[in-house]
Amino acid sequence: MIAVIKNGTTQKQLDSFCEWLKSQGVGVHLSTGEYQTVIGLIGDTSRIDEDMLNGLEIVESVKRISDPFKSANRKFHPDDSVIDISGTTTVGGSIFGAIAGPCSIESEEQIITVAKAVKASGATMLRGGAFKPRTSPYDFQGLRADGIELLLEAKKETGLPIVTEIMNANHLPLFEDVDVIQVGARNMQNFELLKELGKTRKPILLKRGLANTLKELLMSAEYIMAGGNENVILCERGVRTFETYTRNTLDLSAVPMLHELSHLPVIVDPSHATGLSRLVKPMALAAAACGADGIMIEVHNNPKAALCDGPQSLTPEQFDDVMKAVNKVLTVVNE
Amino acid sequence: MIAVIKNGTTQKQLDSFCEWLKSQGVGVHLSTGEYQTVIGLIGDTSRIDEDMLNGLEIVESVKRISDPFKSANRKFHPDDSVIDISGTTTVGGSIFGAIAGPCSIESEEQIITVAKAVKASGATMLRGGAFKPRTSPYDFQGLRADGIELLLEAKKETGLPIVTEIMNANHLPLFEDVDVIQVGARNMQNFELLKELGKTRKPILLKRGLANTLKELLMSAEYIMAGGNENVILCERGVRTFETYTRNTLDLSAVPMLHELSHLPVIVDPSHATGLSRLVKPMALAAAACGADGIMIEVHNNPKAALCDGPQSLTPEQFDDVMKAVNKVLTVVNE
Amino acid sequence: MIAVIKNGTTQKQLDSFCEWLKSQGVGVHLSTGEYQTVIGLIGDTSRIDEDMLNGLEIVESVKRISDPFKSANRKFHPDDSVIDISGTTTVGGSIFGAIAGPCSIESEEQIITVAKAVKASGATMLRGGAFKPRTSPYDFQGLRADGIELLLEAKKETGLPIVTEIMNANHLPLFEDVDVIQVGARNMQNFELLKELGKTRKPILLKRGLANTLKELLMSAEYIMAGGNENVILCERGVRTFETYTRNTLDLSAVPMLHELSHLPVIVDPSHATGLSRLVKPMALAAAACGADGIMIEVHNNPKAALCDGPQSLTPEQFDDVMKAVNKVLTVVNE
Amino acid sequence: MIAVIKNGTTQKQLDSFCEWLKSQGVGVHLSTGEYQTVIGLIGDTSRIDEDMLNGLEIVESVKRISDPFKSANRKFHPDDSVIDISGTTTVGGSIFGAIAGPCSIESEEQIITVAKAVKASGATMLRGGAFKPRTSPYDFQGLRADGIELLLEAKKETGLPIVTEIMNANHLPLFEDVDVIQVGARNMQNFELLKELGKTRKPILLKRGLANTLKELLMSAEYIMAGGNENVILCERGVRTFETYTRNTLDLSAVPMLHELSHLPVIVDPSHATGLSRLVKPMALAAAACGADGIMIEVHNNPKAALCDGPQSLTPEQFDDVMKAVNKVLTVVNE
Repeated sequence: MIAVIKNGTTQKQLDSFCEWLKSQGVGVHLSTGEYQTVIGLIGDTSRIDEDMLNGLEIVESVKRISDPFKSANRKFHPDDSVIDISGTTTVGGSIFGAIAGPCSIESEEQIITVAKAVKASGATMLRGGAFKPRTSPYDFQGLRADGIELLLEAKKETGLPIVTEIMNANHLPLFEDVDVIQVGARNMQNFELLKELGKTRKPILLKRGLANTLKELLMSAEYIMAGGNENVILCERGVRTFETYTRNTLDLSAVPMLHELSHLPVIVDPSHATGLSRLVKPMALAAAACGADGIMIEVHNNPKAALCDGPQSLTPEQFDDVMKAVNKVLTVVNE
Repeated sequence: MIAVIKNGTTQKQLDSFCEWLKSQGVGVHLSTGEYQTVIGLIGDTSRIDEDMLNGLEIVESVKRISDPFKSANRKFHPDDSVIDISGTTTVGGSIFGAIAGPCSIESEEQIITVAKAVKASGATMLRGGAFKPRTSPYDFQGLRADGIELLLEAKKETGLPIVTEIMNANHLPLFEDVDVIQVGARNMQNFELLKELGKTRKPILLKRGLANTLKELLMSAEYIMAGGNENVILCERGVRTFETYTRNTLDLSAVPMLHELSHLPVIVDPSHATGLSRLVKPMALAAAACGADGIMIEVHNNPKAALCDGPQSLTPEQFDDVMKAVNKVLTVVNE
Repeated sequence: MIAVIKNGTTQKQLDSFCEWLKSQGVGVHLSTGEYQTVIGLIGDTSRIDEDMLNGLEIVESVKRISDPFKSANRKFHPDDSVIDISGTTTVGGSIFGAIAGPCSIESEEQIITVAKAVKASGATMLRGGAFKPRTSPYDFQGLRADGIELLLEAKKETGLPIVTEIMNANHLPLFEDVDVIQVGARNMQNFELLKELGKTRKPILLKRGLANTLKELLMSAEYIMAGGNENVILCERGVRTFETYTRNTLDLSAVPMLHELSHLPVIVDPSHATGLSRLVKPMALAAAACGADGIMIEVHNNPKAALCDGPQSLTPEQFDDVMKAVNKVLTVVNE
Repeated sequence: MIAVIKNGTTQKQLDSFCEWLKSQGVGVHLSTGEYQTVIGLIGDTSRIDEDMLNGLEIVESVKRISDPFKSANRKFHPDDSVIDISGTTTVGGSIFGAIAGPCSIESEEQIITVAKAVKASGATMLRGGAFKPRTSPYDFQGLRADGIELLLEAKKETGLPIVTEIMNANHLPLFEDVDVIQVGARNMQNFELLKELGKTRKPILLKRGLANTLKELLMSAEYIMAGGNENVILCERGVRTFETYTRNTLDLSAVPMLHELSHLPVIVDPSHATGLSRLVKPMALAAAACGADGIMIEVHNNPKAALCDGPQSLTPEQFDDVMKAVNKVLTVVNE
């Protein structure tokens, strides 16, 4: 970490600052230039608060040289992490994760039909929303506990591991038989929830927040990992920009960038990112082409009652088509 | 609500769509133009999901004409809401709210010193962070329950009502004697927390999320109000943009815009918005000038140990100077 | 176009508004709902200014139903446009455009070496910057007219059509033998320049601005096409967001979205979008996978003098590797 | 400027890098830490390209310590610049600049009526659009040369100095009698235009681009100043964000921030920033309260033909009310 000192700082102020830094357990390296004095902080600076330093009267600016994330950092863990999913499949290794299912769980018939269909098309996991974060209190909030029951039925029926979102740490007992717990974009910085998930050993699918940087995503992963749970799967699902044709702007460069910064697997959710079912296929192919470890796709079973489909849901037939095309791309990319 | 129908839609599809809409309890008004067919939805459309309609195959686009928020809507509640704060002061009426105090509560001596100082300068409430949302798990997480105890000591000493942030609904029992409960920007869409706060009757200070629209802020207020708690204070604290000199970009046009849309009071937090103590005064004056119902400012007591100050904290002397200037502006603005 | 009328509007105001609309040559369809009055504007509304309507005292909001772009609109031109490049190659048809070359033209030796190398790897066009838009007046501004001379030398040597950026319509005479004229992101809304380019019949490579929507990009294409020049190639090159690891955020969903909205070809520039050479390959593959009509990549010839490379430049060897991988992806995607 | 070197860099690479830096005329200070090697660049680094360094294979990241702008920098010019406007008024000194007038010049009667009205209310300059940058080629493009003629008539009639926008350096001869030349947001990085304006000695009103940082705004000012024209007035007019209620998001913290970074005067345009006439007054008051050197406001003369008003225009009566309120705020702020 480097702190650039303001011109006009007295030697006494500088000494007092250096003393304090040493008291925090970091080494200090002073470099006095013609125009500017710069202090290098040496050692473990992960506990030094960048914002705090930045606010000191004598400090012009601060630059963190080493990353503030440790457990998630590829520098200290060069090999890709492979997350085991209940002994049934993995994410991050040689298996491309394909997580599919409906936005909301609606009925036993619905979830089992979808589960069977997506399994037949090559899905490795089943997703389904039981607890639904909705912008409006007047919108459907999900079947909640009943939804998880139905998801477990579908798991029993098909053998597919299940992924579903948690919104409240108090609900954790309901997730005992859930294979992967999802943290939604709006809860990416719900640190109290992350801490509780860090105490479990469940795989956590952590979605990037609407306006969060990759560094913040990795720091949220760090919250979970600092608690001892290293089973984190990162998920890019689009960020908020000024563009209005698509719901969010899918940031696919996040995939190779996260792979460079971290050893954790990275999957892509083209359904929520674009909000438009007709963009799901091209974006799923692009995700596979740029090295994603998996995709997460909304699939709904009832094309006749299309009225209840989310705008971004595929039919099972469309999902089958996407999977065939994705597999072709994977073949040439992994050659 | 208006739905623009895609060209090429068959009469049968259209009829089936209109039938379904009627089954949802809304009236339907069909307008067939030369180039485009448009359906008007009449009646209470607040339960119709805009995203869902938008995703239907036959729908080109959707426009909501009436606002999706009801309880927070000025149309149905023309008069300004005045939030009573434990019978001691108000926010939203003729009293300009001035909430001041340290970012983090550190010690009894600190919080009481600051409380006395800001009260002398005209603060109407004391703030202090007990539970601290931090991007990094390695940063100081606040004194937590002990912090609230110290805050209550300061309240007893000065009579100032206290404001502090909640991060977990399970902590609510600790907030029994807290006068105003703050929901931080990162939890603005923590809907499970909002629902729990809707069950209380405490004033809730709801901060706008980093990348949330004013409509989303009002929908989050609606979550609290739908539970029966109408005591919501909105807070603009800067949004995330590409600019890097300031931590966030303070959106002061939110103040008159929110006043137009809603009857709820609106305060401004220039400390977090800019992240720079030297910008707090000009932004506090600007907030007062454009009609804010109050300001929220970080004040720290120990200029000698400036190292522990947040970058955006004022000294009590600086806060006093800000209050004097703000009061002058208020005088001419309210003339 | 639909205008929602404010409650409280008098019949007289409404009548006067409708009269005025008719005088502008559009039909008017009035729909009076229980809560809201809505006016539908029928006919050619492309000359009605949405912002102007929106600002009228009696108007609550406005929604444009038909697109404001005509010449670029796929609705009126369902087939893909294929842009002929000097009879040598095309963009938008069955040939995948591969435009490669250095950020800045530096010397005859440099540009000819790169031209030969990229041609050998399958590039269909040579790019090179002669006029360089630089944020700082103190940075290198390009070889300007001399740069174009060198580019023409390389064209003569290799037969590759050439692409280079224009910053000033007064320079048009220098571009007489240039095959494709590029408009950079910063000039996407330099309407005076676009109008002049509309008078030529040269293919124009129009880059999306840093913070411009797809609709604005298409409106800028419309400026060129309205002048009679239909040879427009759109280029996605990343938009500005809050993310800092990458220079910009590449918006690949723009590719299928633009294909849906317009018949114009769409290429992708992964070099400028990411600003990092190590992200160019994965993003080029992703672009090919999601249906782009071509890519534009920075290639520099002198790996030994790597110091002068732009951060996003590839060596000819790296470009060759990218092209091989892209071609494999194209094979399976076009199957 | 500081360059952090990647781990794994060989001594030979490091030596070669240092040699090259010295050949560019900057001194080099090497600091080898336990975890990281850092190179400090000493001397005039304004000609070193940050992006280029950042892209070198051996460089992990770069931090510029000194600002890249020189002429606009307050460090080298501590006193506020006062821009003389044709000997009639100033911007940046003790006079608060009040620039008012219609968005588009429509007729002699219109512009003269508005000019007289705004002068009576205290405007110090008259604005009016002759050349209009419009997103759509089908929208009204302004009266162009004729508009400037009418503006000069109004100047003759009232004595008010005039401000109008230039879109093309070729039009400069038409601006000979214009007092202040405006560069619009879309042309903020039209560097060819800026260079031409640098050759004049006219005051230039430079508007911040829709998505440009304050540093980029100052670098564009630098383009003009590097040509010898030091008469630059900066203008904040809102930036593009995700918010949709307002057209742009007015960034008022830019005012004190620019004052800290630069000696150039800063004015605020609340009309374009918000796009809503009813937000102009509160934002004008806020601008005055936070230290702006002036405001720029759209005023239209014909409330009866309100249909042609831009959505953000005030009537002369409303402008008079704004000026009275602004003057009161200025009185207490400047006490």
